[in-house]
Amino acid sequence: MASVSAALKSRVRRPALLNKVMKAEDTLPFFKDGQYLGWSGFTGVGYPKMIPIALADHVEKNNLQGKMKFNLFVGASSGAETEDRWAALDMIDRRYPHQVGKNIKKGINEGRIRFADKHLSSFPQDLVYGFYTKDKPDNDKLDVVIVEATAITEDGWIVPGASVGATPELLQMANKIIIEVNTKIPSFEGLHDIVGSSLPPRRKPYLIMSPEDRIGQCAIPIDTDKVIAVVESNRPDCTGPNAPQDAKSEAIADHLIEFLEHEVKMGRLPENLLPLQSGIGNIANAVIGGLAKSKFQDVTVYTEVLQDTFLEFFDSEKLKFASSTSIRFSPDGFEHFYKNWEKYKGKLLLRSQQVSNSPEIIRRLGCIAMNTPVEFDMYGHANSTLVAGSGMLNGLGGSADFLRNAKLSIMHTPSTRPSKKDPNGVSCVVPMASHVDQTEHDLDVIVTEQGLADVRGLCPRERAQVIIDKCVHPEYKPLLQDYFDMATKKCLARGMGHEPHMLDKVFKMHTNLLENGTMKIDSW
Amino acid sequence: MASVSAALKSRVRRPALLNKVMKAEDTLPFFKDGQYLGWSGFTGVGYPKMIPIALADHVEKNNLQGKMKFNLFVGASSGAETEDRWAALDMIDRRYPHQVGKNIKKGINEGRIRFADKHLSSFPQDLVYGFYTKDKPDNDKLDVVIVEATAITEDGWIVPGASVGATPELLQMANKIIIEVNTKIPSFEGLHDIVGSSLPPRRKPYLIMSPEDRIGQCAIPIDTDKVIAVVESNRPDCTGPNAPQDAKSEAIADHLIEFLEHEVKMGRLPENLLPLQSGIGNIANAVIGGLAKSKFQDVTVYTEVLQDTFLEFFDSEKLKFASSTSIRFSPDGFEHFYKNWEKYKGKLLLRSQQVSNSPEIIRRLGCIAMNTPVEFDMYGHANSTLVAGSGMLNGLGGSADFLRNAKLSIMHTPSTRPSKKDPNGVSCVVPMASHVDQTEHDLDVIVTEQGLADVRGLCPRERAQVIIDKCVHPEYKPLLQDYFDMATKKCLARGMGHEPHMLDKVFKMHTNLLENGTMKIDSW
Repeated sequence: MASVSAALKSRVRRPALLNKVMKAEDTLPFFKDGQYLGWSGFTGVGYPKMIPIALADHVEKNNLQGKMKFNLFVGASSGAETEDRWAALDMIDRRYPHQVGKNIKKGINEGRIRFADKHLSSFPQDLVYGFYTKDKPDNDKLDVVIVEATAITEDGWIVPGASVGATPELLQMANKIIIEVNTKIPSFEGLHDIVGSSLPPRRKPYLIMSPEDRIGQCAIPIDTDKVIAVVESNRPDCTGPNAPQDAKSEAIADHLIEFLEHEVKMGRLPENLLPLQSGIGNIANAVIGGLAKSKFQDVTVYTEVLQDTFLEFFDSEKLKFASSTSIRFSPDGFEHFYKNWEKYKGKLLLRSQQVSNSPEIIRRLGCIAMNTPVEFDMYGHANSTLVAGSGMLNGLGGSADFLRNAKLSIMHTPSTRPSKKDPNGVSCVVPMASHVDQTEHDLDVIVTEQGLADVRGLCPRERAQVIIDKCVHPEYKPLLQDYFDMATKKCLARGMGHEPHMLDKVFKMHTNLLENGTMKIDSW
Repeated sequence: MASVSAALKSRVRRPALLNKVMKAEDTLPFFKDGQYLGWSGFTGVGYPKMIPIALADHVEKNNLQGKMKFNLFVGASSGAETEDRWAALDMIDRRYPHQVGKNIKKGINEGRIRFADKHLSSFPQDLVYGFYTKDKPDNDKLDVVIVEATAITEDGWIVPGASVGATPELLQMANKIIIEVNTKIPSFEGLHDIVGSSLPPRRKPYLIMSPEDRIGQCAIPIDTDKVIAVVESNRPDCTGPNAPQDAKSEAIADHLIEFLEHEVKMGRLPENLLPLQSGIGNIANAVIGGLAKSKFQDVTVYTEVLQDTFLEFFDSEKLKFASSTSIRFSPDGFEHFYKNWEKYKGKLLLRSQQVSNSPEIIRRLGCIAMNTPVEFDMYGHANSTLVAGSGMLNGLGGSADFLRNAKLSIMHTPSTRPSKKDPNGVSCVVPMASHVDQTEHDLDVIVTEQGLADVRGLCPRERAQVIIDKCVHPEYKPLLQDYFDMATKKCLARGMGHEPHMLDKVFKMHTNLLENGTMKIDSW
């Protein structure tokens, strides 16, 4: 047993658990090649650090690369110093359902890491259904689940840090539990709203009628008999700065805010809008930054992750309440947040991802969902995950949870992305998405810096013309128009013209990019 | 005013509405070219017949083809003698969100009818949001909504027939209402469970915890001041016989029932399963027929449409309760149903499609969803709607409502379909679906007569191998295996091998079918 610091003692209110305190390196014997592990964490906050790093050090020092590989389950992405280092050390066999990091992406795309992405609302469900552990020889539980806590209650319940994610379900499915108590950051007690996952036919409604409705407890219940170690952590979440806005993202935000104002004017949205969901990245930053300067008042947010601009949005007094499953602030953002804790704590709830991304709640609240795809096509399908239909970026995340169920499903992207070989860039609008994560039945509005296409109520051929007219970059407009005209002529003549395509040519822009470095082709 | 028959008088319990009784042909002046119309109906039952037929006769007699065109909104498909005849007479400009019929399909695929399919749970929502009527010059309502009733209550509320569909929301969005009271079929009073559609932020949970939970009223409230005509109808729903089972569909059903038995044995399903959703067609018939003969007891159903085999399932005493939005029986099935009304009426509820297909309820109940696609691909995406990515069949229907939200998402199809030119048939398993309605993130199990692929928890490359091994027809197995091997080698080498594809070859089987009548190609 390690000595217990005063800081740790002040966070752990269950005395019996203090008997299990040890150093990170003392937990190494609990881990064996081939185990199924769960970690807390979501969008790179609230993940365990001490033990994953101790394990990585152990593998590195003893040249165990490829000899200690794990099946790793985390709500969404973890921090680079943990999972990405594990990937570099060949410590990951399987990984679900989302990831961020250069090495882990490399491992996935080179076939060394078996990865699958899944709707973030579905992942914890499928976990408790036993879908990920059904082929495990011994039993259907995860061998070890490591979670970060910022406090432990009298009952031994876990108070998470900056994310809830899938932690309740991971703990529910754990054989053994290790808790990292982070004394470097403040306790987040009071910020969480936790409900457990029961199985059908015994599931009940989530009685959330508004983003501020609290339906659960402030901490995650666990079976304390399963706790095999408590480790003090002095490492903060390793976040970087947020992606800055630029001219393109500001143009997109302007189109979008104009559209929302129009919808309010036409009576299709209330004056304070409806709960917003917004992704991560510079466009999301520009949109939220734009809203903070807009005339909308008493806005609410129901989303999966908040970044720094939401602090500005709160500070503008225009954001009334936000519900999320994680707050991924920059180091400066966290500092500002901790300093003004009293101001923010009554305006914010962190829920499990099964609740933050619940189709039930998103649909009931009538959310306005805004996300960025890799590419979208002229009929309104979007690819959120795979480059050229094959190469994994980060995974689906919660995009489809929100876009399928929102009242207004909006995708935003620059019309082109920078390209190494082609100064015109790569078109983000293509004839057919090379992978479909969001179908034509899911999207209402598509925005680029060129303009906004409102495709509600349009048939596919009408959609295509509006998207070409409003969203495509001028450099690519003639190419897309030609494809559409040729395909329409050919398919209508064949009596198959509902959604015209030429399947022998449909990915010509993509294959030209792969082979010649540019999407600009001479002809179809 | 027309004379009122005794039969009609017995069905209309609101005397004032009897003052509005007229003949179908007397309603013709209410209709004008370009109007937005709503009809009751779902899967070819419960739709209005007298007035659509009178209008079609009028157009035909007076050579008004193309001069009286309407925007037509129906919950799902209507009967062939109405909408399909309208299509043949060029009376349909726009049609949402689902259709069945040779002429209407032809009109859509030849570009004369602007059609878009939409999740059946979303369509009524989007309608009340004003998304389909926002570009209507005068106001945002439907001009005339024609509904079939089997009775009218003292309050003037509508008691539908064999379907509810989107009728509550269509009535909610009506400027003027015409009611066809069908005296040819019995009153269905007591069989329906109706809740209205409120708008966010005022939507409440659907408090259905089990298929038999009743949460609403027995009839649909309307503003009786909007009723401009009441017409007696003596035409029954024009349904045909159900598709018969065959050897392939029985083999599929056998695989599926064996799988369900295994899941029960492993503790992943309760002994009476979980509420079933099943589509229409011969495979669905075989599956339900198989369950009626299985050892499962006290089974429940939560679905959108019931066909004749469900009567057998009830009669076997193994089906405890069924919730649906329509009962599409054959004429013989309806006769059997009416004769045994007392036996069935306590075991069955018909709800609006927004409730029958609600993601909230489907997910809470943990439904087992089973549907047939046009084709699926080796990574687990399915095409439910478009032949060769372009030609519309019937539309998405409720497939994605169920498959996205079910506990177990199952797709079943024969491994090949008959082909005119190729005795081997057309493969229903392809490298990439030519259109994606159900994503890889939505499907758990895929079944053909060849076998069952359980893809839960597998990464895309693992999924592909299982699907090729278990589901593909032997005639096509080498072709699919070659594609997979070649694509894997190429994409892994390129560092883009998460979900290997060769975009320049991916639709070669499809294009060969279009050009040469067979999917069998010599090489990739």
